[in-house]
Amino acid sequence: MKLKALSLVTEELKLVEEKMREGAEEAYGPLAGAFLDLVMSGGKRLRPTLVILSSRFYPADLDKVIAMGAAVETLHTATLVHDDLIDQAFVRRGHPTLTALWQNRGLIVLAGDYIFAKSADFAAETGSMRIVRLFTRTLMTICDGELRQGLSQNLWDRPKEDYYYRIYAKTASLFSLSTQSGAIISHAPEEVIDLLEKYGRYLGMAFQVIDDILDFVGDEKKLGKPVGNDLKEGIVTLPVYYYMKERPEHREQVISALHSSNGERDERVAALVRDVASSSAIRSAYEEAVDMAAKAKEALAGLPDIAAKEALTELADYSVAREF
Amino acid sequence: MKLKALSLVTEELKLVEEKMREGAEEAYGPLAGAFLDLVMSGGKRLRPTLVILSSRFYPADLDKVIAMGAAVETLHTATLVHDDLIDQAFVRRGHPTLTALWQNRGLIVLAGDYIFAKSADFAAETGSMRIVRLFTRTLMTICDGELRQGLSQNLWDRPKEDYYYRIYAKTASLFSLSTQSGAIISHAPEEVIDLLEKYGRYLGMAFQVIDDILDFVGDEKKLGKPVGNDLKEGIVTLPVYYYMKERPEHREQVISALHSSNGERDERVAALVRDVASSSAIRSAYEEAVDMAAKAKEALAGLPDIAAKEALTELADYSVAREF
Repeated sequence: MKLKALSLVTEELKLVEEKMREGAEEAYGPLAGAFLDLVMSGGKRLRPTLVILSSRFYPADLDKVIAMGAAVETLHTATLVHDDLIDQAFVRRGHPTLTALWQNRGLIVLAGDYIFAKSADFAAETGSMRIVRLFTRTLMTICDGELRQGLSQNLWDRPKEDYYYRIYAKTASLFSLSTQSGAIISHAPEEVIDLLEKYGRYLGMAFQVIDDILDFVGDEKKLGKPVGNDLKEGIVTLPVYYYMKERPEHREQVISALHSSNGERDERVAALVRDVASSSAIRSAYEEAVDMAAKAKEALAGLPDIAAKEALTELADYSVAREF
Repeated sequence: MKLKALSLVTEELKLVEEKMREGAEEAYGPLAGAFLDLVMSGGKRLRPTLVILSSRFYPADLDKVIAMGAAVETLHTATLVHDDLIDQAFVRRGHPTLTALWQNRGLIVLAGDYIFAKSADFAAETGSMRIVRLFTRTLMTICDGELRQGLSQNLWDRPKEDYYYRIYAKTASLFSLSTQSGAIISHAPEEVIDLLEKYGRYLGMAFQVIDDILDFVGDEKKLGKPVGNDLKEGIVTLPVYYYMKERPEHREQVISALHSSNGERDERVAALVRDVASSSAIRSAYEEAVDMAAKAKEALAGLPDIAAKEALTELADYSVAREF
């Protein structure tokens, strides 16, 4: 899918990449190489795109926009370094992870720490205390969400609010930081900052729900990883909530699969993944994602009609149209 | 050893602890408990003491001083969480580490990340972009130093400059951040900020050289850990540099001990530790630490004669008088 939104920000994204490259090269040799591979291995650059588009409604200082674009993308990269270590993931976006490349686990912890520090350093380049504060709070939220997720494995009976908080913390908080900071850099009025915050938050939630659906029904080749990963890790996502709601025996199936003994767990979880994937729970979760994307677009209604607004609308549509 | 310096800052240190306690309690339940234990388990609170004393030469906003004191101590705590994980250390300051308490290594990585984020958040409370920038650069330096150390294990032939950079990165950079930020909060003139930076840097280097000496000749009970740890990890510190310089055969001894086969390595390193401890290398390294402490005091000469200056002088003397 070719996004018009991206063609609007091609120039700025190049500058963001240039800035990240310089940041990586400043690091110690062995880290610099790994850092460079990480930030250059691509991905959609969705977070810097959100910073750039959100800064367009009012005149903004380009250097600050680029610094913030580098900050959110670098923060995202740092979280992936630690996530891949924690999950023992060896491949991401078709590239070997640091966890695959470096034997020494301690050095991977430190590499992630360094990249976190560099991302905060980029954020400080905006010269805005308000943005720095949002940045540090967002980083706290991301870690908090991951800690909660790590501590709630195999808990099938958590309220749905837990799930919403987890996807906010994991994905939507950084999307919301991206849109807010773009608006703040452009000295947008508070109402506009609020609307773009709301847009980023709902967009991020829609994205994460779709990710969670793809973990059941996605194409393993396109995903670049096996399906059913979340349940294997004992993480209960939205499709499973709907699945358990469908029929009382589904709830029993989930409980017994998650708590089955080591010998049979893999097989039972795999069967559960197939059952969830072919159930109407997928459709229900998908409808909820569409609702979230609609709320994101709703927030845009109050903004001036410029090309960036159209691009943000397109991103909201794309968020629920990916890979289906 | 009872320090007068500490009695000068008793009130402020209580406020710093109160602030850290509030920060810890804001975290998610299981993390909050661990975070609280970590920040309350004490230690000398040397870094916040440096912030407070360095802010005394000009009138400073107390809230900002306290926030920065909490920032440097919390940053120090975060580095310890990851260090203990990396080094598989189970006891620190007589308390079990998170590495001893939590089975799940991934959660310890995340706990450290969260505490890093919280420390940056405290630093942002000073409202000073300059301090935030120093803070993020210091965090980068600390990680960079640890990465270099991790990647230079068993390298006995590194130039001495590598060692100085490592102890700067590991210890002196945070001491220097502490003294500088105290001065910046009090709107001290640039010359004063520079002098306090220099003081903090040399004080930190002296401290770390003494730590490295104690790793050979310290009392295991007082240290709370076995001696000879650095060499066991393949880390070459100042006493070993001097030891290798003493006699050509010492160099051979170090090389062969560090590169001996698994079966005999422990024994050979232990013998080497005993030999270094009883050699004149200890005295040479100690004299260098005394020089560094003298340079720290020299930097103070240009400052107004107030009680804080006397306390900082006392800390410089203490840095090389610990445990001997």
